[in-house]
Amino acid sequence: MRYPEPFKRLIDNLKKLPGIGEKSATRMAFFLLKEDRSFAESLAKAIIDVKEKVVECSNCFNISERDPCYICSNPERDKSIICVVETPKDLAAIEETGVFKGVYHVLQGRLSPTRGVTPDQLKIKELVERVKRGGVKEVIIATDTDIDGNLTAAYIAKELEGLPIKITRLAEGVPVGAEIEFMDIPTLKRAITWRRPFKET
Amino acid sequence: MRYPEPFKRLIDNLKKLPGIGEKSATRMAFFLLKEDRSFAESLAKAIIDVKEKVVECSNCFNISERDPCYICSNPERDKSIICVVETPKDLAAIEETGVFKGVYHVLQGRLSPTRGVTPDQLKIKELVERVKRGGVKEVIIATDTDIDGNLTAAYIAKELEGLPIKITRLAEGVPVGAEIEFMDIPTLKRAITWRRPFKET
Repeated sequence: MRYPEPFKRLIDNLKKLPGIGEKSATRMAFFLLKEDRSFAESLAKAIIDVKEKVVECSNCFNISERDPCYICSNPERDKSIICVVETPKDLAAIEETGVFKGVYHVLQGRLSPTRGVTPDQLKIKELVERVKRGGVKEVIIATDTDIDGNLTAAYIAKELEGLPIKITRLAEGVPVGAEIEFMDIPTLKRAITWRRPFKET
Repeated sequence: MRYPEPFKRLIDNLKKLPGIGEKSATRMAFFLLKEDRSFAESLAKAIIDVKEKVVECSNCFNISERDPCYICSNPERDKSIICVVETPKDLAAIEETGVFKGVYHVLQGRLSPTRGVTPDQLKIKELVERVKRGGVKEVIIATDTDIDGNLTAAYIAKELEGLPIKITRLAEGVPVGAEIEFMDIPTLKRAITWRRPFKET
């Protein structure tokens, strides 16, 4: 399509974003062209600000406005329990529950033999060092429960072997509100194997 | 989700783009955070540039880097044939064919009783004035061939009534490469009604 150069350039830039093809990029470009200049300015500023103001916590590797992050620097959080997650999104999801009072360790990915992700590309060494520095009683491995997530969990468990800590994994089972007849077999198997006393919540 | 403020602000801005929900916006924000700073800068600049450098052609209302646009100011284009399109996207699609040597008039939308789009919101008055200024022999109405597009075409034809010009509509029929058995009935009806001599291309 023959569009004005700045318009074409905007489309080309937008197309580099994940999940954005030619069509969506064009629609977004027309939207930006039509919207108030203030929106374009606000979006452009937000894009630059995220690169300038968002840093990585040098302790847990979460994204943060300061280092250490607001969780690591919060005296009310229990530093003896570390919940290991793949990404800041997973961390945010667990934070939303409000039940976890410990701290985190963000791996920044997960092992994947098919996609060539090896342990040295993740923050695993940093986790082991963190645990070795002491004060840690439990590491909860909260990686995904699919193949790569389980592989990552197994690898981490092995790396932490021999250290005087408890290693746990998030409970697997039937999601709350699920209909049993539609559950997949592996999940049902876990739910039966790990069944819990009826009265406990 | 509890993300750092600049990160949250980027997600909120991205969410205002058409077709972008919370999930896509978050994915895009993480992508921007991970990518080189140069990409963020290039995207931010492209967003600002499109507002600064892309203007509307005061003659045909196409988007352009200059006014009049590169088509209106091209001495090789035939100013006596105006192709009326709904949007710059339609114009770009027709330009791609390379067969049209006339000029355009971009309505910037189409009439829609259901969405409350009335004639005064489109560049219809400007089209009539342009034709009245003279030098125009034919107006090709290339609005969409759906209900609103046909309504818009009918309205424009009526507005141009009595002026000494030919008014035409894009041919409707079976698309090139189509399988007859899967064609919809309205299209087949048109294709039969407007059948053409076999030898002509």
